[in-house]
Amino acid sequence: MDQNELVDRITREVVAKLKRTSEFSRAPRPRNNGVGGQRIILNSPADAAAIIDHTLLKPEATQADFDALCAEAIQYHFWSCCVNSNWVPYCAKKLRGTGVKLCAVVGFPLGAMEARAMAFETRRAIEEGANEIDMVLNIGALKSGDLKTVEEGIRAVRRATRAGTILKVILENGLLDNGEKVAACQLSKKAGADFVKTATGFSKGGATAEDIALMRRTVGPEMGVKASGGVRTFNDVVTMVKAGATRVGASSSVAIVTGGSGTSSY
Amino acid sequence: MDQNELVDRITREVVAKLKRTSEFSRAPRPRNNGVGGQRIILNSPADAAAIIDHTLLKPEATQADFDALCAEAIQYHFWSCCVNSNWVPYCAKKLRGTGVKLCAVVGFPLGAMEARAMAFETRRAIEEGANEIDMVLNIGALKSGDLKTVEEGIRAVRRATRAGTILKVILENGLLDNGEKVAACQLSKKAGADFVKTATGFSKGGATAEDIALMRRTVGPEMGVKASGGVRTFNDVVTMVKAGATRVGASSSVAIVTGGSGTSSY
Repeated sequence: MDQNELVDRITREVVAKLKRTSEFSRAPRPRNNGVGGQRIILNSPADAAAIIDHTLLKPEATQADFDALCAEAIQYHFWSCCVNSNWVPYCAKKLRGTGVKLCAVVGFPLGAMEARAMAFETRRAIEEGANEIDMVLNIGALKSGDLKTVEEGIRAVRRATRAGTILKVILENGLLDNGEKVAACQLSKKAGADFVKTATGFSKGGATAEDIALMRRTVGPEMGVKASGGVRTFNDVVTMVKAGATRVGASSSVAIVTGGSGTSSY
Repeated sequence: MDQNELVDRITREVVAKLKRTSEFSRAPRPRNNGVGGQRIILNSPADAAAIIDHTLLKPEATQADFDALCAEAIQYHFWSCCVNSNWVPYCAKKLRGTGVKLCAVVGFPLGAMEARAMAFETRRAIEEGANEIDMVLNIGALKSGDLKTVEEGIRAVRRATRAGTILKVILENGLLDNGEKVAACQLSKKAGADFVKTATGFSKGGATAEDIALMRRTVGPEMGVKASGGVRTFNDVVTMVKAGATRVGASSSVAIVTGGSGTSSY
């Protein structure tokens, strides 16, 4: 190899490397919270970061795991970190001033917590720094045909939020038939939620394009739709967004935005 | 077959039938709450009823399922019904005056709910009629080596209970090593819990005789030890009691006490 070839090759490598780094080191673009009819543009895996809730919900996750979660969210400009309410104070400190939001799950993952307790958990999480709340629907009430209790449960959590808090309702589609999914979307909208969300990741089933499309058709363009449960690659994200999703929950988020293949399970 | 033979055969059948029925129709014997050093005697499957928390924690369970749960608990004299906090008011009404206790799980099944929220959920469940509280340990804090937070979490729930409320701490052994199991038992005892319990039934692993024996050795004779997660037959119950359990959580409880083989999953 002569000197010219060598210089060419090194130049190419350096340029390629700079380009890859700059996708994440540039200032984050104007952010879209996923509620309402904004269009999501995904030209490259790095673009997905802005719609990803970077998620860690395993009960055995440790402080070191949450250190990594927050550091990754800051580095890759994920929309938020999504954690159990126990970890809200710890992560709120790490994310303060970074532009990364903090999302707390409540009544998670069964949705079988008494409504006033779920509202209390919500209020505490917000006091401690959560900007978004992902609550689980009262699945048992829905399956009992008790729609009033389902709606009241969502309203109780909605009342516990502050102005600007984004509220998502997790349907747990894997346990519902299509009629129940539609009813759940309608009740979520009626009760003032901002998003409907596919799954907890702790039950059977996850996000499917069919479900996202059904949810989008039901709630119309004004609400957010979050795809979660088994979203592990950039292709999965593209599929979900094409079907109507405006937010994605994932634990394989770093792999998604760097174009790798995700291995961690949500 | 002559008349005498026929009379003999009918008599035998009727006597056998009466005997089977009477095991459950007699007045319940003096009951042992499983805390402290009382001996558990299991001469027949029906004897197991007095130490079983008849359990239904699936999020998709409906009103009709809880009707059945309560009716079975009354019919077979189970110690309690064990339900998510959402279902406490409904089941409390059905069990009032029957002698069957009501047990509510809190912070369930991840143990990742903020301590004050878990205490609030406990207080509400007791106000609504729960006699026993099964809380999940702060698993993430334990695995982070933050024993103070684990202990404080148990104390917060203990303070939220009333005199006479039995408090069990679920360790979720499937996620812990033996050192962590021992630490969890010690902290539970120190923080004033009445029981340690093996598992939620929603994670990997369930009750094993080895774990029950380890828990019993650690807490000594004064505390209760509850075996839960995969206990499906009378033989399983006998194994757990021999290892040191004084209470069993099961959803296959009817099969256990009637000597059938359990099919429902906990």
